[in-house]
Amino acid sequence: MPASTTINDILRARRTVYKYLHPTPLHHYPSLSRLVGTDTWIKHENHQPVGAFKVRGGLHLAAGLSEEQKQGGLYTASTGNHGQSIAFAARAFGIAATIAVPEGANRGKIAAMEGLGAKVITHGEDFDTAREWINNIAEERGGYFVGPTDEPLIQGVGTYGLEIMEDLPEADVIIVPVGAGSGVCGTAIAAKTLKPEIKIIGAQSAQAPTQQTCWQSGIMQSGPMATVAEGLATRVPFANTQTLMRNLLDDFILVEDSAIEHAVYLLLEHTHNIAEEAGAASLAAALQIRQKLEGKKTVLVISGGNIAPKRLQQILMEHA
Amino acid sequence: MPASTTINDILRARRTVYKYLHPTPLHHYPSLSRLVGTDTWIKHENHQPVGAFKVRGGLHLAAGLSEEQKQGGLYTASTGNHGQSIAFAARAFGIAATIAVPEGANRGKIAAMEGLGAKVITHGEDFDTAREWINNIAEERGGYFVGPTDEPLIQGVGTYGLEIMEDLPEADVIIVPVGAGSGVCGTAIAAKTLKPEIKIIGAQSAQAPTQQTCWQSGIMQSGPMATVAEGLATRVPFANTQTLMRNLLDDFILVEDSAIEHAVYLLLEHTHNIAEEAGAASLAAALQIRQKLEGKKTVLVISGGNIAPKRLQQILMEHA
Repeated sequence: MPASTTINDILRARRTVYKYLHPTPLHHYPSLSRLVGTDTWIKHENHQPVGAFKVRGGLHLAAGLSEEQKQGGLYTASTGNHGQSIAFAARAFGIAATIAVPEGANRGKIAAMEGLGAKVITHGEDFDTAREWINNIAEERGGYFVGPTDEPLIQGVGTYGLEIMEDLPEADVIIVPVGAGSGVCGTAIAAKTLKPEIKIIGAQSAQAPTQQTCWQSGIMQSGPMATVAEGLATRVPFANTQTLMRNLLDDFILVEDSAIEHAVYLLLEHTHNIAEEAGAASLAAALQIRQKLEGKKTVLVISGGNIAPKRLQQILMEHA
Repeated sequence: MPASTTINDILRARRTVYKYLHPTPLHHYPSLSRLVGTDTWIKHENHQPVGAFKVRGGLHLAAGLSEEQKQGGLYTASTGNHGQSIAFAARAFGIAATIAVPEGANRGKIAAMEGLGAKVITHGEDFDTAREWINNIAEERGGYFVGPTDEPLIQGVGTYGLEIMEDLPEADVIIVPVGAGSGVCGTAIAAKTLKPEIKIIGAQSAQAPTQQTCWQSGIMQSGPMATVAEGLATRVPFANTQTLMRNLLDDFILVEDSAIEHAVYLLLEHTHNIAEEAGAASLAAALQIRQKLEGKKTVLVISGGNIAPKRLQQILMEHA
């Protein structure tokens, strides 16, 4: 395994990221703080131009490609946000992008990828199937396959972790939704280098617990996947993020999909922001462990806001 | 009438505003651009910590008060966003704030004002009634009454207009929702000083057309008010913003409430952002005049995102 990411890689990544993106805000919300029972801040990755944190990683990865790699084009698989990131970065650097999505993927996310100029192909019943398929296509065609946890992605997305610590050095806890794990690993590397005593907590759906169960057991094993939160829909664990998470995570919480949906509503009510289901997992986890958070300055990462309007309507009908 | 705001006042305001707030993003959205039929950017004032542009003005106003004025406390009336701005600024500077809201005001906005430590009193059937009442209270108690178009507010909110021009000097048109008019006036002053040929267009609800009809006729006269967009719910025109708007606006569009509601949905679909009704008036206006915008780089200001979840649910049920 290659030497893994350090904060200096994240600092280097920021040079590229800030050519295309501004830092996102970290806001304190009094009424949300009362709900969680402790001072609570939101890191607003839902404010990114493509609505999710991933775009930071895509830009850094694309910036590091050789001319030959750029000419071969980028290939990846995505449930939506990673694909938008690669499409955004490919457009910024004038690279062709081909993205495989699983059947039933979020249509708004597909439209956004296409709007950014990417070619989108639907294949397979879940993310991991689509990923293995497009990896083969890339090899056949001599294209560059982007895996969801490639080290440059971790370095790029780690820039939001750095922003959190620069804005709030007093932070005691950061809770991060976990899909493939790039976000939580980048955040943990940045935050723990600056402040080793900070607690980093992952949050995943109990309906897609693979990453959490592997983290707990140390055994790399695929698991069930039935979550409505496509951003958390990981069935097969990733070696590099598992290694990092085992070193860096202080806790890893599973939350029910129903609690995630309620959290989408609560974020709308208390912060007037849209989180997609994955993005709201951090609040769902905080509410589940609220006693442990008491008195701790808590940062919740809203990793993305790309929810389909119909889904949001259903959630509001149940909860508003 | 005192000498009115110039870009130098806005530059001065920015010193205070940036102590408490970051600039908001200006994002280009490919799929929204296709919908509007021209390259379209959104100025995201819905990303402010209190969910609306007004907070910029409140901070600048509070920063300029004497110690005696601070001790007397701030008094104002609001349908919600201006009140949150004053509450936020009052908290930042350790000042007491008392805010009158009309009956039926947005409960989420009231909770947010109270969460920021303000005293909220419900009085009168609409904004203008509440405003006249609290103005008298402030006089009786020796407090400082903040009118909705006080010059420091125009200077403070003008900082977002400045940000638009710094981020996109190529802008041809900026469309701004108009309630009391501070936002559109501040924007026009900043933008037209830097680029006299830029077009500034106001947007208001056809169900609360007072500001538009006064702007058109030059006669100061109250009008009907029945809009669902509380941020546009002005019944009585304001002398200073009317004077500025007559000098600076190139057009002033009335849009039906139904078109505003549809625009709330379209912004969710195409940008994954929440606009409150007032905030979506800029998109509704753009769609209404899309032929005139063809080929013009168009900026739509989403002035705020503080919509009640129940209202959003109703809009999604109709449109999603």
